Amino acid sequence: MIEKFQHTIKEEIEKLSADYSLPPSELYEPIRYMFDMGGKRIRPLFVLLACDIYGGRTEEAVAAALALELFHNFSLVHDDIMDNAPMRRNHPTVHQKWNSSTAILSGDVMLVKAYQLVQKSKIAERILPVFSEMAVKVCEGQQWDLNYEKVKTISVAQYFEMIGLKTAALIAASMKIGALLGGADKNNAELMNEFGYNTGMAFQLQDDLLDVYGNEKKFGKQSGGDIIANKKTYLLIKAIELSAINRYKKEELEQWLSFVPKEEKDIAEKIHGVKSIYDFVKVKEITEREINLFHKKAVASLEKISAPADKKKVLADFTSKLLLRES
Amino acid sequence: MIEKFQHTIKEEIEKLSADYSLPPSELYEPIRYMFDMGGKRIRPLFVLLACDIYGGRTEEAVAAALALELFHNFSLVHDDIMDNAPMRRNHPTVHQKWNSSTAILSGDVMLVKAYQLVQKSKIAERILPVFSEMAVKVCEGQQWDLNYEKVKTISVAQYFEMIGLKTAALIAASMKIGALLGGADKNNAELMNEFGYNTGMAFQLQDDLLDVYGNEKKFGKQSGGDIIANKKTYLLIKAIELSAINRYKKEELEQWLSFVPKEEKDIAEKIHGVKSIYDFVKVKEITEREINLFHKKAVASLEKISAPADKKKVLADFTSKLLLRES
Repeated sequence: MIEKFQHTIKEEIEKLSADYSLPPSELYEPIRYMFDMGGKRIRPLFVLLACDIYGGRTEEAVAAALALELFHNFSLVHDDIMDNAPMRRNHPTVHQKWNSSTAILSGDVMLVKAYQLVQKSKIAERILPVFSEMAVKVCEGQQWDLNYEKVKTISVAQYFEMIGLKTAALIAASMKIGALLGGADKNNAELMNEFGYNTGMAFQLQDDLLDVYGNEKKFGKQSGGDIIANKKTYLLIKAIELSAINRYKKEELEQWLSFVPKEEKDIAEKIHGVKSIYDFVKVKEITEREINLFHKKAVASLEKISAPADKKKVLADFTSKLLLRES
Repeated sequence: MIEKFQHTIKEEIEKLSADYSLPPSELYEPIRYMFDMGGKRIRPLFVLLACDIYGGRTEEAVAAALALELFHNFSLVHDDIMDNAPMRRNHPTVHQKWNSSTAILSGDVMLVKAYQLVQKSKIAERILPVFSEMAVKVCEGQQWDLNYEKVKTISVAQYFEMIGLKTAALIAASMKIGALLGGADKNNAELMNEFGYNTGMAFQLQDDLLDVYGNEKKFGKQSGGDIIANKKTYLLIKAIELSAINRYKKEELEQWLSFVPKEEKDIAEKIHGVKSIYDFVKVKEITEREINLFHKKAVASLEKISAPADKKKVLADFTSKLLLRES
């Protein structure tokens, strides 16, 4: 089922890409560029899976599925400008390959095209408010993220609220929209929303964890990009919180945070230094426990859903696999 | 009627502004800031006037009217980043007052909020496609505008297509959406679209003209900002075209275009120099004739519309006044 849907999404994205070959090319090429980069495409997959669970015709959910992927790409293109990110999925970001103006404008048109795809849905009048509410949340989440860059540290509650808006809201909306298109009633659509929200939270924490501890066993190396950028991930926020009671560790962490690596060996040193504090306060285990909690909440919502057990199992298994991923 | 609607729009914008006082303030304050700047607010006015012409309840068109003003502000905020514009309506632009990230993100949320307002309309399913199609056109127009900055000159046809997308499409959509909300049939809605398109074209050409010849009689001065920026307005494109047959004038214009003013007196000199070529090739008269042609086309569409003569007259008079404005 998963492979079949992934194949459908791939095919439909290719078809859609062909529509974006018109001039002005500077406006439409970045849409194809972002699609060609690939990525996990979990948002459209969740739309189709959620639709299928309720016995809906997934052909009728394809437009909305593509809308959510396009919206995701819009937010990536604009976020990358704001974050001054040079690379995304191993390719130069849109503002890097073209320029900021093109990235702003092609992002804008991606958002409008996403709306046009949502409008194609049979029950567009019910999907659109969910989509818009999600879009507002994603913007708010990004704004909090920008604001928090300027402060020394934030609380776990603030961090959860921020990723709830920026990341989990989009996964939640994918599930809810898919469920509505599949014919779910209000209560079931809400349960799918909760399932998506908690999955999204776990997914983001997993992302934070993988940046430091990912691929270690597999490749014997890690990237640590978040550590180098002093990015306020769950791991860092928690490590700051936990090291506060140990004056020596607290000062050590603060020193690493104010240390700007200039050479290759400085980078490795900073990653090693921060990681040793993470290990000392056992932040890996704490994060895994938190991921587990969100995962359990997600599963609890899924269990309450009125749908065939075998179909629910497909979604549950896929989510578990996603949260056990190592890259 | 005009004053009554203008008053309604002012009141409704104030009410809407109050909704945007929530955190994160960096995201929502720019929305209020743009509203507080004022501006002509002709787009929401056109929505209400078009609705009224067909005997519609204008209360039910208020949300869509606000959506079009909010969309207009979204496009101004993003365009100002791309154009690196420091001022707008005598105030610092959003990216200047805050920063580019805030301008990108608050622009994004303005676009989403505009969609949420359109969704409130009773016949949202008919309005939304018109709104989205317009939004795509405005993005395309801005992209052409950016592309044309890099070339030496463009044809009048290219210029008309560009302003047709960037400016006239938004006025056209305001009229069409208002008409649909007022109960116009397909044919009448299309006529209102044509009326709006031609009015929008005339309006933009008037804008080009006013930048060079505006306020002259009234204030005895002119700004000439477009001349200083070598902006490809109708006047410049036409002057390049017309001076081509006169080798001396052609070279003179080219010299002025490559002259970058550094001091106050250089600015005045360049404006005076370019303007004397404009006068020589009679570009003022040519532009006025072109404005007149678009205005006549607009009036012809309005005449074909099935609506009470007195109501049509209100719209016709307002448009004429708008196209005779001196600032």
